[in-house]
Amino acid sequence: MDYKSSGVDIEAGNEVVRRIRTLARGTYTSGVLSDLGSFGGLFSLGDRARRDPVLVSSADGVGTKLRLAFMSGIHSTIGVDLVNHCVNDILVQGAEPLFFFDYLATGRLDPDVAVKIVEGLARGCRENGCALLGGETAEMPGFYADGEYDVAGFIVGLVERDRLIDGQRVAVGDVLIGLPSSGLHTNGYSLARSIVFERLRLGIDDEVPELGTTVAEALLATHRSYLRVITPLLGMGLVNGMAHITGGGITDNLPRVLPDGSEAVVRLGSWDVLPIFEWLQRAGAVPDADMLRTFNMGIGLILIVPAAAATRTLTALATSGEPGARVIGSIQKSADTAARVRYER
Amino acid sequence: MDYKSSGVDIEAGNEVVRRIRTLARGTYTSGVLSDLGSFGGLFSLGDRARRDPVLVSSADGVGTKLRLAFMSGIHSTIGVDLVNHCVNDILVQGAEPLFFFDYLATGRLDPDVAVKIVEGLARGCRENGCALLGGETAEMPGFYADGEYDVAGFIVGLVERDRLIDGQRVAVGDVLIGLPSSGLHTNGYSLARSIVFERLRLGIDDEVPELGTTVAEALLATHRSYLRVITPLLGMGLVNGMAHITGGGITDNLPRVLPDGSEAVVRLGSWDVLPIFEWLQRAGAVPDADMLRTFNMGIGLILIVPAAAATRTLTALATSGEPGARVIGSIQKSADTAARVRYER
Repeated sequence: MDYKSSGVDIEAGNEVVRRIRTLARGTYTSGVLSDLGSFGGLFSLGDRARRDPVLVSSADGVGTKLRLAFMSGIHSTIGVDLVNHCVNDILVQGAEPLFFFDYLATGRLDPDVAVKIVEGLARGCRENGCALLGGETAEMPGFYADGEYDVAGFIVGLVERDRLIDGQRVAVGDVLIGLPSSGLHTNGYSLARSIVFERLRLGIDDEVPELGTTVAEALLATHRSYLRVITPLLGMGLVNGMAHITGGGITDNLPRVLPDGSEAVVRLGSWDVLPIFEWLQRAGAVPDADMLRTFNMGIGLILIVPAAAATRTLTALATSGEPGARVIGSIQKSADTAARVRYER
Repeated sequence: MDYKSSGVDIEAGNEVVRRIRTLARGTYTSGVLSDLGSFGGLFSLGDRARRDPVLVSSADGVGTKLRLAFMSGIHSTIGVDLVNHCVNDILVQGAEPLFFFDYLATGRLDPDVAVKIVEGLARGCRENGCALLGGETAEMPGFYADGEYDVAGFIVGLVERDRLIDGQRVAVGDVLIGLPSSGLHTNGYSLARSIVFERLRLGIDDEVPELGTTVAEALLATHRSYLRVITPLLGMGLVNGMAHITGGGITDNLPRVLPDGSEAVVRLGSWDVLPIFEWLQRAGAVPDADMLRTFNMGIGLILIVPAAAATRTLTALATSGEPGARVIGSIQKSADTAARVRYER
């Protein structure tokens, strides 16, 4: 792989490469064969490719949450957001992460900022047992404003085919179990920024009395990973479907794993909406439907399990460190062909 | 996976998703299990994971070659560049590509431009037997100037461990075989643009008499893939090492596969430098050393093979459609520990 600066400042690039290499090495798992500097990153499947292995992959960015990093000067958590977002995207299909690549693009490379970003990526990777196997650092003068950058992530995970979770088994009568989010995760930042900075005219370091934190702390809260609490469930065969609640909220993400002719009935009030969403809604006078289609509203991941397995699932989740999981609805028959979400109070 | 617009214009995003889905489906190979719209892209290894499979992956961008696409309005070849660049990066370790993801970021999504870009990605993927398994289209207002975008690619390929090419077998006495490039590929564009647009003050559509093409045609010539001509060699066990000549030219890329205590002696004049490089060097009065460390100079990939295998390799390459391959040097013993390239006339 290719940690190179494609731009002008070769020395700054080399310095970044040296520091990144150390960070990446700290994430290496038993599958890693290569070291940074070779053309491609090498990962040996070895015993992981047992019977009928399926690779599950995803590409993602952190969107305009980056703007908060620029405003606050805090660049060390964006990487955690990105890795955890990617981990959750493949986890909902039953996959455990193997390795991660990043693409970091700037106008002019600031070595300290680049290293801060990669520190976050490396921490996210370590916490998920995922190797930071490589990446590309691109210096493209004129493409990005001074002090700005974009960062994308690519993850590859593995699942045995008979453990793949694709929603095929989701059936009418199944229940929805919601897992708490840690904040906005990585979605809804265009709306949130417009409310906080334009409507309320707050500064990045202002205290928000309703939240007991600063604006930066509230809006930069990291996207959490559900890997640790979900992994124990994957071997139990309880889970029929899972949805990662990202852009589009529950409204747009849950239908992606529902069969035709079904609807997800979600009971509002069955979980605690995080204070930050109540604050944003009030401050922005945002209609309920828009909130539910923009933000995760305090639910970052939804499990779909047979009704008879709900208690066992909640117990298993509590055992693995997730006492806040709640039954938030169920799957019902629908007259419409296209699956959708209906909210009840 | 996630072909979603994270930005404001949901309808434009949905339209892009529909058109991209059709393009991506045209690239699907037998391993693809998922369709766009699921959280992760699914690729079944199946019979491909035979004995001791190693995944070889790379992330890349096309750098400031994008500026040429913006200037010319030609957005359909950047995707081919990106895929072929990634394919070559893993090919030099012996891997054949399985699947590809892209990350496309804009300030405001122009559906027609996005579709043109993905048309290129899809064509590149089809030509390399590689599935366009997913991607992310991010709309980030304020991050990119109007009409501009950035695009990154991520590729995953496979090689059996005993067929991995990592330069370990490269030995003193081996010869270097250079394969012709098709132009600048994706490197050296900062220097090239400065020569063409600032020093020569040419326009994007101006004719270049020395080249018999327009500036746009010359500078947008696509990065070629070496997959088709190299694949037949991989089963023959002839190749000790390979280098993809990207940013840093032969000077910086060839040492990546050389053992300590060796140097690559490259004979200038043993291959035909492409006219575009001669034109750029003359127009920019660029010293030889800078040319060799910035551009590929007409050699896009270098094979390192035992001297006794050189003729067989050249014959095999000619048979698979690469008559232009040339012996361009050899591996020699060196007093220095760090491997390097020495040019001879």
